[in-house]
Amino acid sequence: MEVESSYRDKQLVEEKVFKDPVHRYIHVRDQVIWDLIKTKEFQRLRRIKQLGTLYLAFHSAEHSRFNHSLGVYEIVRRMVANFEEYEEWDHGNRLLALSAALLHDLGHGPFSHCFEKIFHTDHEAFTREIILGDTDVNKVLSRVSPEFPEEVASVINKTHENKLVISMISSQIDADRMDYLQRDAFYTGVSYGTFDMERVLRVMRPSKDEIVIKESGMHAVEDYLMSRYQMYWQIYFHPVSRGGEVLLNLALKRAKYLFEKGYAFKQFPKYFIPFFQENITVADYLRLDEMVVNFYLQEWIHEEDEVLSDLSNRFVNRELFKYLPFDGSVITENEIRELFIKAGIDPDYYFFSDSFSDMPYDYDRPGMMNNRRPIHLVKADGRLKEISSQSAIIQSITGVKRIESKLYYPKDKILEIEDLNVKSELINLLNELA
Amino acid sequence: MEVESSYRDKQLVEEKVFKDPVHRYIHVRDQVIWDLIKTKEFQRLRRIKQLGTLYLAFHSAEHSRFNHSLGVYEIVRRMVANFEEYEEWDHGNRLLALSAALLHDLGHGPFSHCFEKIFHTDHEAFTREIILGDTDVNKVLSRVSPEFPEEVASVINKTHENKLVISMISSQIDADRMDYLQRDAFYTGVSYGTFDMERVLRVMRPSKDEIVIKESGMHAVEDYLMSRYQMYWQIYFHPVSRGGEVLLNLALKRAKYLFEKGYAFKQFPKYFIPFFQENITVADYLRLDEMVVNFYLQEWIHEEDEVLSDLSNRFVNRELFKYLPFDGSVITENEIRELFIKAGIDPDYYFFSDSFSDMPYDYDRPGMMNNRRPIHLVKADGRLKEISSQSAIIQSITGVKRIESKLYYPKDKILEIEDLNVKSELINLLNELA
Amino acid sequence: MEVESSYRDKQLVEEKVFKDPVHRYIHVRDQVIWDLIKTKEFQRLRRIKQLGTLYLAFHSAEHSRFNHSLGVYEIVRRMVANFEEYEEWDHGNRLLALSAALLHDLGHGPFSHCFEKIFHTDHEAFTREIILGDTDVNKVLSRVSPEFPEEVASVINKTHENKLVISMISSQIDADRMDYLQRDAFYTGVSYGTFDMERVLRVMRPSKDEIVIKESGMHAVEDYLMSRYQMYWQIYFHPVSRGGEVLLNLALKRAKYLFEKGYAFKQFPKYFIPFFQENITVADYLRLDEMVVNFYLQEWIHEEDEVLSDLSNRFVNRELFKYLPFDGSVITENEIRELFIKAGIDPDYYFFSDSFSDMPYDYDRPGMMNNRRPIHLVKADGRLKEISSQSAIIQSITGVKRIESKLYYPKDKILEIEDLNVKSELINLLNELA
Amino acid sequence: MEVESSYRDKQLVEEKVFKDPVHRYIHVRDQVIWDLIKTKEFQRLRRIKQLGTLYLAFHSAEHSRFNHSLGVYEIVRRMVANFEEYEEWDHGNRLLALSAALLHDLGHGPFSHCFEKIFHTDHEAFTREIILGDTDVNKVLSRVSPEFPEEVASVINKTHENKLVISMISSQIDADRMDYLQRDAFYTGVSYGTFDMERVLRVMRPSKDEIVIKESGMHAVEDYLMSRYQMYWQIYFHPVSRGGEVLLNLALKRAKYLFEKGYAFKQFPKYFIPFFQENITVADYLRLDEMVVNFYLQEWIHEEDEVLSDLSNRFVNRELFKYLPFDGSVITENEIRELFIKAGIDPDYYFFSDSFSDMPYDYDRPGMMNNRRPIHLVKADGRLKEISSQSAIIQSITGVKRIESKLYYPKDKILEIEDLNVKSELINLLNELA
Repeated sequence: MEVESSYRDKQLVEEKVFKDPVHRYIHVRDQVIWDLIKTKEFQRLRRIKQLGTLYLAFHSAEHSRFNHSLGVYEIVRRMVANFEEYEEWDHGNRLLALSAALLHDLGHGPFSHCFEKIFHTDHEAFTREIILGDTDVNKVLSRVSPEFPEEVASVINKTHENKLVISMISSQIDADRMDYLQRDAFYTGVSYGTFDMERVLRVMRPSKDEIVIKESGMHAVEDYLMSRYQMYWQIYFHPVSRGGEVLLNLALKRAKYLFEKGYAFKQFPKYFIPFFQENITVADYLRLDEMVVNFYLQEWIHEEDEVLSDLSNRFVNRELFKYLPFDGSVITENEIRELFIKAGIDPDYYFFSDSFSDMPYDYDRPGMMNNRRPIHLVKADGRLKEISSQSAIIQSITGVKRIESKLYYPKDKILEIEDLNVKSELINLLNELA
Repeated sequence: MEVESSYRDKQLVEEKVFKDPVHRYIHVRDQVIWDLIKTKEFQRLRRIKQLGTLYLAFHSAEHSRFNHSLGVYEIVRRMVANFEEYEEWDHGNRLLALSAALLHDLGHGPFSHCFEKIFHTDHEAFTREIILGDTDVNKVLSRVSPEFPEEVASVINKTHENKLVISMISSQIDADRMDYLQRDAFYTGVSYGTFDMERVLRVMRPSKDEIVIKESGMHAVEDYLMSRYQMYWQIYFHPVSRGGEVLLNLALKRAKYLFEKGYAFKQFPKYFIPFFQENITVADYLRLDEMVVNFYLQEWIHEEDEVLSDLSNRFVNRELFKYLPFDGSVITENEIRELFIKAGIDPDYYFFSDSFSDMPYDYDRPGMMNNRRPIHLVKADGRLKEISSQSAIIQSITGVKRIESKLYYPKDKILEIEDLNVKSELINLLNELA
Repeated sequence: MEVESSYRDKQLVEEKVFKDPVHRYIHVRDQVIWDLIKTKEFQRLRRIKQLGTLYLAFHSAEHSRFNHSLGVYEIVRRMVANFEEYEEWDHGNRLLALSAALLHDLGHGPFSHCFEKIFHTDHEAFTREIILGDTDVNKVLSRVSPEFPEEVASVINKTHENKLVISMISSQIDADRMDYLQRDAFYTGVSYGTFDMERVLRVMRPSKDEIVIKESGMHAVEDYLMSRYQMYWQIYFHPVSRGGEVLLNLALKRAKYLFEKGYAFKQFPKYFIPFFQENITVADYLRLDEMVVNFYLQEWIHEEDEVLSDLSNRFVNRELFKYLPFDGSVITENEIRELFIKAGIDPDYYFFSDSFSDMPYDYDRPGMMNNRRPIHLVKADGRLKEISSQSAIIQSITGVKRIESKLYYPKDKILEIEDLNVKSELINLLNELA
Repeated sequence: MEVESSYRDKQLVEEKVFKDPVHRYIHVRDQVIWDLIKTKEFQRLRRIKQLGTLYLAFHSAEHSRFNHSLGVYEIVRRMVANFEEYEEWDHGNRLLALSAALLHDLGHGPFSHCFEKIFHTDHEAFTREIILGDTDVNKVLSRVSPEFPEEVASVINKTHENKLVISMISSQIDADRMDYLQRDAFYTGVSYGTFDMERVLRVMRPSKDEIVIKESGMHAVEDYLMSRYQMYWQIYFHPVSRGGEVLLNLALKRAKYLFEKGYAFKQFPKYFIPFFQENITVADYLRLDEMVVNFYLQEWIHEEDEVLSDLSNRFVNRELFKYLPFDGSVITENEIRELFIKAGIDPDYYFFSDSFSDMPYDYDRPGMMNNRRPIHLVKADGRLKEISSQSAIIQSITGVKRIESKLYYPKDKILEIEDLNVKSELINLLNELA
C-alpha cells in the first residue's frame, strides 16, 4: 500500500454526521476517520455489547461498543478543537488522537471480562494485534504513514512517548470514561452518570504530559468522579449482571472440559477451539463475536451432556443463580464446596464465588504503586495541585478500595437435594449468610 | 395444568420495578405478568431487534422487542389505572389487557418485515400459535383459566368481542404506537417522537367499543399523529435501513435457491430449511432469532458460491447497495434488468426495487375500506366526533397516502463492467435517475 | 464619542459564557456584545416577562425577555459560524447580525401586547428610538461607527438593504422564533416546542436575499412549523393568559379615564401620564417596566374608585373573569352590552370580547399581500422551491387562518344581580353560549 | 366562619392539574388545597423569587416561590400516596401534611436572606403569623377545624408533636429540599441537582418519628446529598449573587439611615418604615413584595443623596462590586476600613465582608448540638442505622463545615482615589488578596 502524502489531511467534501442520543451529533470530516469506520473490524464492534451481560439486570442496556467508540472519538474531536488555541497542543497530533480514540476498544471480544478471565486473553493486546496485523484497519492507517499503525497502537497501549495524547484516551478523566458514564447512564435510564461534560471540556488544558484542569473546574471534576463512583456500584457491579457472567463462565468451562475429554458435541465448538487451546490468531479472535457465542450457547442446550445443556439453558433463558453476600467469616469457600459435594451438587459448575472492587480515584504514592496518574488542577500562576489535596470530597474517596464478594448457586438444585439432613444443613447455612 | 382460582388475582409480596429510560419505571405487581416475563418465549424477544436493520442508519437503535414489550405493558397498566374510575371499564378485563399488551409482539421473528416478505410468514399468526401451543407462555396463561390463552390471543389478533380492550393495544392511538414512537425516538436520538403521553393518557376515556378522547385533548392527539408522521418518514423508512433489508432479502433468496439446487453448503442452513420449505412449526420459528440469522450470514461469507458469499459479506460488514429514487417514468424496471443482464450483472441478486408508503391517519369511509377505525373525540354532552372533522391539521393528512420508491444496486459492480458501451449507458441512465 | 477603528473587532481576552438551560451555554467573545449586555437598557429586559400574563395559566413561565434575547443572539452566533464557510456570506456583516439579534426586543414594554393595544405604542418603533436615542446602547454602537446604530435599527425594523441578515432575525424561520419556541416550551414544561434546531441550523444556507433550506432538511422544517402551530394554540393563545390581559387592559382604561376626569388618586399615576396622553419620550418608556406597573396595580387596590380598586385587585390576586366562546351568531356584542347595562354592570369595565388568530405559515401571492416571505428549499442544482409546494403537511396549513373569539365577564357580578328577571335572562344566555 | 364537617374531605369533581416542568404535572383533588392556592397570600408568592438575586449570576433563574411551593406540595402528595399502604402512616394526617407542604414558604419576604439579616425579620415566624392571622389562608384552614391553622403552623415551625409529618417537610431529606434542588437545577440549567427522586420516594418508609430509608436505597441518598453539596457551592453560594445582596443590603441600610436623619425623600419609603422601625404587622409584611422593593430601588436612583442614588443604581442596573477572597490573615477587616476612610471612601456603604458556610449533612452528637436529626437507613430486620455509618462517601462529608469569605468593594471608586499614595497602597493590598 502506497503512502499518499495528502491522505493524512484529506477532508470529506461535506461533513458527515451521525445522529447520536448522547452527544446529539458525531461529526466526521477526515477521510481517514471515515475510512476507519467503514472497515469490517470496526463494524464488528456492533456485535459486541458495551456492557456484556448487564442487559440481564437493565433490560435497556443493549448498546454496542461501536456506539461507544463513536462517542469517544467525538469527545476527543471536541477536546482537540478546544486545544487548538493553546501552544502546548501540537496540531500534528490531531489525527493520532482521533484515530486512537475511535479504535481504543477494537480488541474487545464477546463478553470481554468473562472471556479474559477464563481464556486469559487481553483485549489491549488484541487491539494492538488487529491494528498491526493483516486487517482493513491496518491498511487504512498505513496509508497515512508506515509508522502510523504503530503510533496509534502505542497510544492505546499507553507506551507512546506523547503522554498528553495518551491522557486524552486513558487517564482518570479521559474521553473513554466521559463517554461511557454518560452513555451507559442514558441507556440504563439512571441519573447517576450525569455531569456537565461541556464544562469539563471547557476547563481542560493541554500541558506537556497530561491534560490538566483549570482550578475553577474543580467542582465539575468532583461531580464527574462521583458519577463514576455511583455508576460502578449501582450499575457496573450489579450482581444480576455478574450472575449472567457466572453462567457464561461455567458453561464455557464445561465446554472446554468436554472438548478436552473428547466428548462428541452435536454442535462442535469450532470457533472456540483456539480459545480452549489458548492459541488464538487475530482471525480466530475477530470471528468470535457475541452473535456466535450466543448461537453456540443456544445450540448447546440440546447437548447430551446435562451440565453443559443446563448451564447453557440458564444463560440463554435467564434462569440465573441466586446470590448471597459472602466474606468467608461464617464459613470458608472450601467448606461450602464440601457440603455441595455431600449434597450431590458439583461445585465446579454449580457454585461460584465472585469478588469485585473499585477505587473511584487514586494516584501513585510512595509504597503504593497502582499505576494511576493523578488529576491535576492548574492554578492561575501555572502551579499544579493534585486534586484530592484541594477537594475534601475527593480526598474522602482517594485510595479507598471497596470490595464486595458474592456467592452464586442454583436455588432450585438445593431444593431438590435428596438427603434431607444435608439439605437442611445447607439451607440453614445459606439463610445464615443472607 | 390445574387452574388455580386465586392465580388470576395473585399479587407479588412487593412490587417489582424495571428501570426504563422511556417510562422511568415499569411496575409489576401481578404474579401472572411476572411469570410471563420469565418465560423463555418472552425472553427470546431480547434477541430480536425492535427496528431490524435500522441500526445501519442510526447506530444507536440497537434495542430489542423485549424492551418495547415491557413499555407497551406499562402504558396499558397506566391506562387501566386511569380507567378504573369509569363505570364503562370492567375491572375483570384488567389482566386480559395487561397480558395482551405484554405479549402482543411475541410472534415477531428476526428482521420481521424482511422475513415475512420472503418466507410468507405472519407474525400475528405466530403470536397466536405460540400463545396456544406447547409453550411456557401457554402454561402460565392456562393457570388463569383454560380459556385465557385463547382470550389473550384473540385480543392480539383483534377478533375478541371486547373492542375496547383491543383498541388499547391496536388502534390508531394505542399503547403499542405510543411506546414505539417514544422509544424509537429515544434510542435514535431524534426529537420527532416527542408528544405528551401523560396528557394523552389523561384525556383517554373508556367507552363501549373503543378508547375515546376528551375533546380538550385534540391538540395532544394532533401532536401524537404528527410525531407518527415524522417518525415514519424520517426514521422507519430510512433508505439506508431498507438497504440492509435488501441485502438480507437477496442473500436469503440465494441461500434458498442454492438449497433447492442441492448446493453443498459448508454451513448447512439447518434452521432455515423449514422457512425455505414454508412448513414451519412453532419450535422451528422460535429457534430462528437474530443471533442465529447473523451467525449464518457470517458463516456464509466463506461459502464457495460467490453470490451468497458476496451478499452475506455486504450485509455483515455494511457494504450497502447504492440507492436512487425511482418512479418508472424514465425507464421501466424491466428495462433496467435487461441492461444489467447485458452488463453481466445478475439482476435477480444485484438489483432491487423497493417501495414503501404510509398513511399517518385514516378511517373507513364508503368505498374506501382499509380497516382503520377512526379516532373519536367525545364532547361534554357525550356526542362523538371523528377527529379529522375537528382538526384542520389532521384533516390535511387524513387518507393521504405517500409512496416512495427506491432502486438499489451495487455501485462497485457497475464500475467494474467490462463492456464500456454498456457501462457508460448504464452510468448515464443512473445519473439521470439521481 | 470617538469611533475606534479596532473596537468593531475587539475580542475579550477569554471567552465569557452564560449557562443557559435551553442552549446549554451562550458564548460571548466580542467586546461590543459584552458591552451591549451590560447597558442599562438591555438589563431592563430582565424586568419584562417574555410571556406577559401567561404565568397566570402556566405558573412556571416566569422568564424574562433578557433571557430570550441572549438566546436569539446565541442562535445567530451559531448561524454565522456555519455561514462563514459559504461565499454568499459576507463576514463583514457578522457584528451587525449579532447586535441586531441581541437587541431585537429592546423596545418591548411591560405586558407588550396589552400596552400596545391600549396606548397605541409600537415596540418596533421604540426599539429604533432606543437604539438611536441618548442611551448607553447607542453609545456602545456608535463606537463601532457613526452609522452602526442606524444599521442595527434598520435590520430590526426590516428596512436594511441586506435582506439576508434581516431574514436571520425576522422571517418565517428565524433565530427569534427558534429561540422562543424552545424556550417557552422549556419554561412551561410542554413538549410541543421541541424540534431539532441543530439539524435546522445544519441545513440553512445563506443566499443573496434570504436564508434558504437544503432540500433534505424539509422534514425538520415541517417539524418546526408544527411546533409553532402547537405552541400558538396550546400556549400563546391560552384563554387564561388572555384573561389576565383583559383585566390589565380594563384597569388601565379606568385609570386613564379617572385621570382625564381629574380624579384624586391616592397613588398618582405619574409614570402612566405620558402613556395616557400618548406623548411618550424614550425616557418615559424605559422607566415603565413590569415592576412599576405591578407596583401601581397593587397600590390602586386601595383607591376610592371601586372600579379601579376592583379591577386592580382581580389582576394582582388572580381573580380572573370567566370566559366563553363567542362568535356573535347567537347574540351580538352590543346586545350583551345592553343586557349588562340593564343588570347594572358597566360593560365598559366588566365585559370584554377578545379575538385572536394565527397563520402558522403563509407567503405572499397575487391578491393576498400579508408581507410574509416564503421559506425556500434549495435543490442540489440551486433551484429554489417554495416549501409548501413540496410538503403536503405544510401545504395543508399554508394560508389557513384560524380565529378564536372569547367573551370575558365576572361571574361573581352576574350572581349578584338584584333584578331576578335580568339575572336569569343573562344566566340563560351565558349558558347557551357555553 | 363555621366549620363544615365535610370540608376536610371534600374532593373536586374533576382532578385539576398544573403543568410543571420539573414534576410534569401537579395534581390537586382536595378542595382545601385548591382553595389555599387561590388565596391572595399564596398568590403573593408569585412576586417573590425563589432564589433572590441569583438571576444576576444565572440569568435563567427567575422562578418564584409560588412555583417551588406547588412542587413541594406535589412531592408530599406522592409521599403520602406511597405511605398509605403502611400501617405506620395515619391517613388522618394527609391533609395536614399537604397543607403544611404547600404553605411552608408562605412567610418569605422579598430577597429573604438579605431582609432577614438587615431588618431582623424571620420568615418562619411570619409564616406562623400569616397562617394564624386575619388572612384568607386562615379562613380556608379554619373551615377544616378551629385547630387546623395552629396544627399546620406548628408542623411548619417544627413544634408539632407528629415528628413524622414534620420530617416530610423539614429534615435532611425532605420534600422541600428535593423540590428545590431539582427545580433550581432545572432553571439554572446545571446538571448538579439531578438525582433519582422517584427512587428516593420508593425507598422512603414512614416510621413513628421520621421518614426512614430502606437500606437498598443508600446509594440514591448518597446521590441526593452530593447534589445538595454541589448545588450549594456551585449555585447557591455564587459570589455574584451574593454581590447583588450586598448592594441591596447597603442601599437599604442607607435608606434607613436617611429616614432616621429626617432626610426628605423624593419617593418616601412608606412601605419600608415598619421595617426600619422593626415593628411590622402581617399586613405591612405582606405588602412588601419584590415588585415593591424593586420599584423603590428604581425610584431612589433619582434621589439627591448620592450614596443612596449610587447604590440603588448599581443594584438595578447590575453594576456589581468586585469581590476577593478574604480570610483576615493578610490584613484585618478593620485595617481595610481604615484605609478606605483614608482614601475618602465610606466603608459603611462601599465595603462589605461576606461569609457563608454549609454542611451538606450532619447529625447531633454529644457535645455538638446543631439540631440536625440524622437520616436513618432501615435494615430488613427493622434495625435503624445512621447513614454515615454505612456510607464512606457520606461519612466523608458528615459534619464537615466549609466556610468561605469574600470581600466586596467598588473597583471604579478605587481607581478614582485622588491621593496617589493611598491609591497605590490600596491597589497593592487588593492585588495581594486576589
